[in-house]
Amino acid sequence: MRIAVGSDHAGFPLKAALAGWLQELGHEVLDLGAYSTDSVDYPLIGFEVASRVAQGEAERGVLVCGSGIGVSIAANRVAGARAALVQEPLSARLAREHNDANVVCVGARLIGEEMAREILKVFLGTPFEGGRHQRRIDQLDQRPLAVAPEER
Amino acid sequence: MRIAVGSDHAGFPLKAALAGWLQELGHEVLDLGAYSTDSVDYPLIGFEVASRVAQGEAERGVLVCGSGIGVSIAANRVAGARAALVQEPLSARLAREHNDANVVCVGARLIGEEMAREILKVFLGTPFEGGRHQRRIDQLDQRPLAVAPEER
Repeated sequence: MRIAVGSDHAGFPLKAALAGWLQELGHEVLDLGAYSTDSVDYPLIGFEVASRVAQGEAERGVLVCGSGIGVSIAANRVAGARAALVQEPLSARLAREHNDANVVCVGARLIGEEMAREILKVFLGTPFEGGRHQRRIDQLDQRPLAVAPEER
Repeated sequence: MRIAVGSDHAGFPLKAALAGWLQELGHEVLDLGAYSTDSVDYPLIGFEVASRVAQGEAERGVLVCGSGIGVSIAANRVAGARAALVQEPLSARLAREHNDANVVCVGARLIGEEMAREILKVFLGTPFEGGRHQRRIDQLDQRPLAVAPEER
């Protein structure tokens, strides 16, 4: 599977570890940074990973920041991206089965590397259930996207 | 505080309990549904709560679905809304301090009512830290919002 990965500085060590592990499993990893623990802005990385997934350049995305919250907000700004912030495998399964999530976000301050690997295993291995869930997925991108800040 | 609350059918019982508790605490609650356990589509509720918050009709939003994932994706489609999916109080604190989150999402299948109340206490009581975090908050709504599905 082709997987886009990204993080901010706080998420860099966990992202680097997960990227290496995904490659060992035979996945093609598109690492979109950060490439060090130097401070970077999480919205830019979140947009980038989500856009690559939404545009089909990667099948799935993995995002890491301190809490996972910042990157999950950013990624879900991108139409076609469905980013799930996940702390344990049950959420990873529900994200795939019900929400057809294509980006998974984790918080490096909240979970350890082994939990993150277990989450990724489930996230990458669980199919979407379709059916009644598909209509809701479609609705997520049918809304005229967002009130522009100028209009508020 | 004026608080918009919403859920899908799976989140209805927890949302109803939290809405009552918030009123007891003296908050003004704007309940945008669901109003029963009859099946509804989470994207519509997520958009609605997030829009009310983004437009300033409510100061904060609370969203509940089975996992919290669906409503968090939907809410973050709305510019000006910053929705954090949270399972415990540390995430609730970081969501406020770093991300100035104005909507909190919880999963009724994942956490109990007492944990949800503790999350809301922290979420409603923690101020945004500002500073370096403000630039990133601004970035979240500065991006031309999303690739429209037609353009993908």
